[in-house]
Amino acid sequence: MNAQPKAKLDLPPLVAAARGLPTPHTPVWIMRQAGRYLPEYRKVRAGTEFGALTRTPELAAEVTLQPVRRFNLDAAILFSDIMVPVEGMGVDLAYAPGPVIASPVRTMADVNKLRPLVPERDVPYVLETVRRVRAELPAHVALIGFAGSPFTVASYLVSGKPSKEFATARAFVQSEPAVTKALLDHLADSTADYLRAQAEAGAQALMLFESWGGLLGRNSFAQIALPSVQRIIAKLKGVDVPLIYFANNCWTVLDLIAGLDVQVVGLDWRGSLAQARTVLGKDKTLQGNLDPAALFAPPEILERSIDDVLADAGSNGRHIFNLGHGIWPETDPDAVARLVDHVHARTARKA
Amino acid sequence: MNAQPKAKLDLPPLVAAARGLPTPHTPVWIMRQAGRYLPEYRKVRAGTEFGALTRTPELAAEVTLQPVRRFNLDAAILFSDIMVPVEGMGVDLAYAPGPVIASPVRTMADVNKLRPLVPERDVPYVLETVRRVRAELPAHVALIGFAGSPFTVASYLVSGKPSKEFATARAFVQSEPAVTKALLDHLADSTADYLRAQAEAGAQALMLFESWGGLLGRNSFAQIALPSVQRIIAKLKGVDVPLIYFANNCWTVLDLIAGLDVQVVGLDWRGSLAQARTVLGKDKTLQGNLDPAALFAPPEILERSIDDVLADAGSNGRHIFNLGHGIWPETDPDAVARLVDHVHARTARKA
Repeated sequence: MNAQPKAKLDLPPLVAAARGLPTPHTPVWIMRQAGRYLPEYRKVRAGTEFGALTRTPELAAEVTLQPVRRFNLDAAILFSDIMVPVEGMGVDLAYAPGPVIASPVRTMADVNKLRPLVPERDVPYVLETVRRVRAELPAHVALIGFAGSPFTVASYLVSGKPSKEFATARAFVQSEPAVTKALLDHLADSTADYLRAQAEAGAQALMLFESWGGLLGRNSFAQIALPSVQRIIAKLKGVDVPLIYFANNCWTVLDLIAGLDVQVVGLDWRGSLAQARTVLGKDKTLQGNLDPAALFAPPEILERSIDDVLADAGSNGRHIFNLGHGIWPETDPDAVARLVDHVHARTARKA
Repeated sequence: MNAQPKAKLDLPPLVAAARGLPTPHTPVWIMRQAGRYLPEYRKVRAGTEFGALTRTPELAAEVTLQPVRRFNLDAAILFSDIMVPVEGMGVDLAYAPGPVIASPVRTMADVNKLRPLVPERDVPYVLETVRRVRAELPAHVALIGFAGSPFTVASYLVSGKPSKEFATARAFVQSEPAVTKALLDHLADSTADYLRAQAEAGAQALMLFESWGGLLGRNSFAQIALPSVQRIIAKLKGVDVPLIYFANNCWTVLDLIAGLDVQVVGLDWRGSLAQARTVLGKDKTLQGNLDPAALFAPPEILERSIDDVLADAGSNGRHIFNLGHGIWPETDPDAVARLVDHVHARTARKA
């Protein structure tokens, strides 16, 4: 047997797991953990419009911290929205409740009007939120910064509004390949700068949400979405925090994702982590992937579903527990408490 | 080399391809080919509400035949809706435009109130439409009948309305396993009778749309959706028409689907048919799977995308060309003509 590397006690378990280092337990957090299922969140939102909340560090920090106060979570994730940096690029958008763009981006002139993001100038409130949260978080709780993938953000910019299938955006990338490439390049460069600024402000992991890349076919994903992600990763060289790539509904392209230089791949609930491991290899940490619906089952069924995910994750420690998608607003917070505590209890390493 | 079986000239190419027999070309049809992208369809719809259209054989037959008159398609598919048999079971529903259920089905009492479907009594207009279309179709054009999978239909019955994620239905199957099983058993039995009646009325292939089963995680798919599909297949033993199972967004459970006793598996556009072939084996015919967005590309790019699908389908003849999802209303009908003719030209077998 090889000697096992020692746990670095100063690293939060989530960061250690992301780097393949030993941890006292499998770290756990929940996508959209700061959200409408929490009464304390609804209370803040009752007085504040969503966009204003993302631009007010005091309130954004408060809702970021709410779930960490209530549950034994191993991470907080910045409360913000993937469209916030786009506002910083000069795009006029509103949340209704999904992002609605006054003038969708559809021509080369539209792309050229987008300002390259200078985070401290254009979105100072995000960086201030990161600093405030980091200052208040216990040392063992990691702070995760994030951004949307270029294709995902472009889907909203082109469509002008949320959409089930993003037909407008998907038709656009077929009919306007040159504009698409210019748009994705711009978004990739600004997103890299945005993520680096979050790390410099105190984020200890960075997550890139590929929410809609899975709507592309395999060839289009390879030709359109993937190069823009690679561009971000290349520009982040030297930023010493782990990258988490959330590959939503991307099971058919996991073999392509396996080649990305990221430490963690987040998986949705549709497949098993054992399937993902087969394709992604043993050198990446997997994040996920309990079905958000499982939180509606009776406690013993929920615990069995959690155990299934833990079994599929394997025993090499390269696992960060999460849901496979954002938590639903109708979820009972007590089920979340049960989940977090069960994951910790089941995975506590013997001394 | 083995001797190749001879083409049966009396079989429509689609039926031959479904059975693994030689065909003069790769057969092609388009999901939602009778639909809003056709001006002649919009003209009929302008005067008739959707539900009334499904219940009026003269009009339903007319819109079923419209795309066959315009394009060299190898199949017509019955114009109807997956919720039509549910109306026959006594459920009060409207289309607005998706199905809206006045009283969602959520208790054992609700399930017990569902009438077992007797097709000639409860949905005679569907069978009359099948007979009318079959009488008018050229012999080489196959008529496809269809139904929704039990889980898919149940998703609407439980939710009461269309939904992006069907959170209500997915939470329901977790919290109410006994009611779920009773509902799916009822739907499976009635669906089998419904499909058999369509075959007896003249449908030459039967398609089961698993539109929402892919929203279940792998374990839930295996425990909930799959047994109800197996139940239908078992009840259809002796019905001598090929079965097509449309496995929408089911790439993580294709290995389970490989075990189904169906002749054809329909695939969505997310993965490649080559990937599907690896899992499904050589003894099933694959149907699909061009991205509906590809129809918005310039002609030479569209043709390249079609060629990619044909290459991925392989050369063993077990392929029915289709889109990977329903055609979008914004599609140019001329692109469809180009697609159909290109598939035929590229795959014409030498005598």
